[in-house]
Amino acid sequence: MSANRYRIDALQYANWSQKIFRQMREGKLDAVHVTIAYHENFRETVANIEVWNGYFERFPELIFHGRTGDDVRLARETNRTAIFYGFQNPSPMEDDIRLVEILHTLGARFMQLSYNNQSLLASGCYETNDTGITRMGKAVIEEMNRIGLVVDMSHSAERSTLEAIEISSRPIVISHANPGFWEPALRNKSDTVLRQLGVSGGMLGFSIYPHHLKGKGDCTLQNFCEMIAATAELMGVDHIGLGSDLCQDQPDSVVEWMRVGRWTKNIDYGEGSAGRAGFPPMPGWFNDNRDFDNVEQGLRDAGFSDEDTGKIMGGNWLRFFDQNFGPA
Amino acid sequence: MSANRYRIDALQYANWSQKIFRQMREGKLDAVHVTIAYHENFRETVANIEVWNGYFERFPELIFHGRTGDDVRLARETNRTAIFYGFQNPSPMEDDIRLVEILHTLGARFMQLSYNNQSLLASGCYETNDTGITRMGKAVIEEMNRIGLVVDMSHSAERSTLEAIEISSRPIVISHANPGFWEPALRNKSDTVLRQLGVSGGMLGFSIYPHHLKGKGDCTLQNFCEMIAATAELMGVDHIGLGSDLCQDQPDSVVEWMRVGRWTKNIDYGEGSAGRAGFPPMPGWFNDNRDFDNVEQGLRDAGFSDEDTGKIMGGNWLRFFDQNFGPA
Repeated sequence: MSANRYRIDALQYANWSQKIFRQMREGKLDAVHVTIAYHENFRETVANIEVWNGYFERFPELIFHGRTGDDVRLARETNRTAIFYGFQNPSPMEDDIRLVEILHTLGARFMQLSYNNQSLLASGCYETNDTGITRMGKAVIEEMNRIGLVVDMSHSAERSTLEAIEISSRPIVISHANPGFWEPALRNKSDTVLRQLGVSGGMLGFSIYPHHLKGKGDCTLQNFCEMIAATAELMGVDHIGLGSDLCQDQPDSVVEWMRVGRWTKNIDYGEGSAGRAGFPPMPGWFNDNRDFDNVEQGLRDAGFSDEDTGKIMGGNWLRFFDQNFGPA
Repeated sequence: MSANRYRIDALQYANWSQKIFRQMREGKLDAVHVTIAYHENFRETVANIEVWNGYFERFPELIFHGRTGDDVRLARETNRTAIFYGFQNPSPMEDDIRLVEILHTLGARFMQLSYNNQSLLASGCYETNDTGITRMGKAVIEEMNRIGLVVDMSHSAERSTLEAIEISSRPIVISHANPGFWEPALRNKSDTVLRQLGVSGGMLGFSIYPHHLKGKGDCTLQNFCEMIAATAELMGVDHIGLGSDLCQDQPDSVVEWMRVGRWTKNIDYGEGSAGRAGFPPMPGWFNDNRDFDNVEQGLRDAGFSDEDTGKIMGGNWLRFFDQNFGPA
């Protein structure tokens, strides 16, 4: 790994522990975007930030709170991993546009406009009807653009996603998903979305969550990296990175919280099913943060140059962090 | 006014408006510590910060959010006033010690451990029994020391104040009060407290709130500055500054909120009385932020040197800000 090559994972939601933070160091992760809210309201999100402040106090030699692209460089220089906060849902801002700036001050850098369902701002990918960006959604995107809180449409519906790309004055991201042409899951993205995302300067993070993979846990590293190569053809090698969606060590109760939150009294299986309700088994080549070497080797084996491999492993995300985590 | 002389007021709670921010500029204030909570809980305090974010958006040529001593220098360089947040009561942290760091991240730099009454942390100056610093108070002082949130004992009782000075590993402040030897109001401070405050490296901000003045609104500038000279003798000229307690343009309903909050259904007149329930009339030489020139002239007339006048008008506070607004 060359000295100026950065390793960034643009989405994880693990059951955080010293073990996992150590594995981040073993896997040479300079930065990880961690989910700190699925359905939490403002005060509950603050409670989650309090928990992270506890991790930073207890493990200062392994991790610290990242706020800027330069914090990724600081992480490299000090042999630590910078932790960046994001929300999978706009629930932390409740119905209050001024909470966007408050949450950014507390460290939020990514916010999904919807999570599977309709939100106040946009439609989720499991809704029958896709409203596009709502009135409040337009106002909130403008505020996010002003502050430097990145719009993430990973779990949003097609029309909402295309409108977010169009309405946002700054590039947006799909932090964790794969192309639908490879695996037609509802959560994966159309060629149109990916092409517009690339043209607009946005970023796609490739997911290794089994429900987003062709063949789920049986997907081979070679097949995964060939898909990355095809996606690079579609949207440009400068607009792709990793967003593993690693949910390491989580009990199945957590995937139920992700899917069901407080919005229904029934069970919703999301991408799973009654027979496979829990977290799906991971592919053998990616079980935890120590396996990023496998991904890097896979990219090389798929024919990526040294330069392009570096871009995908973290260089592209670092450029994006530099440009989008503060006022324009 | 020499180029390296700073003007800092270490407490105001005005009915904020463009007019007042303009007057801060006319009065050459480089920094003002503003109260953003009296009895507000966490979420209500966040709502108050949202209001301030609105002021910063609307009046960027007049004010900005200050976080460090260097922001006072930035204010001077850009002809603006840096606004520093503080609480008159620990109510914003509720019963949650981890909110100390959250509130510091949101910009809080001063927190009183009690406001007139008993709090979870310490006794207020109007209580009959003074507990000193409570168990939780000791834990919170340690956390405030770690983070760089300054302990303020302006409205606290004698024993609690002396114990806070003793327990805190970093200097504390009495941001707005006067010596009891001059005007024996319950809110003013004993020689013992002031001496210990000075010895420990702390700061006293002189109040111009009429109930803290000898003769209230009839107090002369000369008498006020002679009191400052006597206090400098007692605790050292390096440990005093201004904390005007200016409550400009506030309706009397606000002084009732300060005194009564939600802790009683009855009226409590605090330093006032049934016959004088509202805000008391200010002395003629200090009505708003444009009158700091009067105070500076008064200090010179009382015999302070150019250097010592500069220390009292802001230099001492700037040194204190530099040393106490972040980790030690």
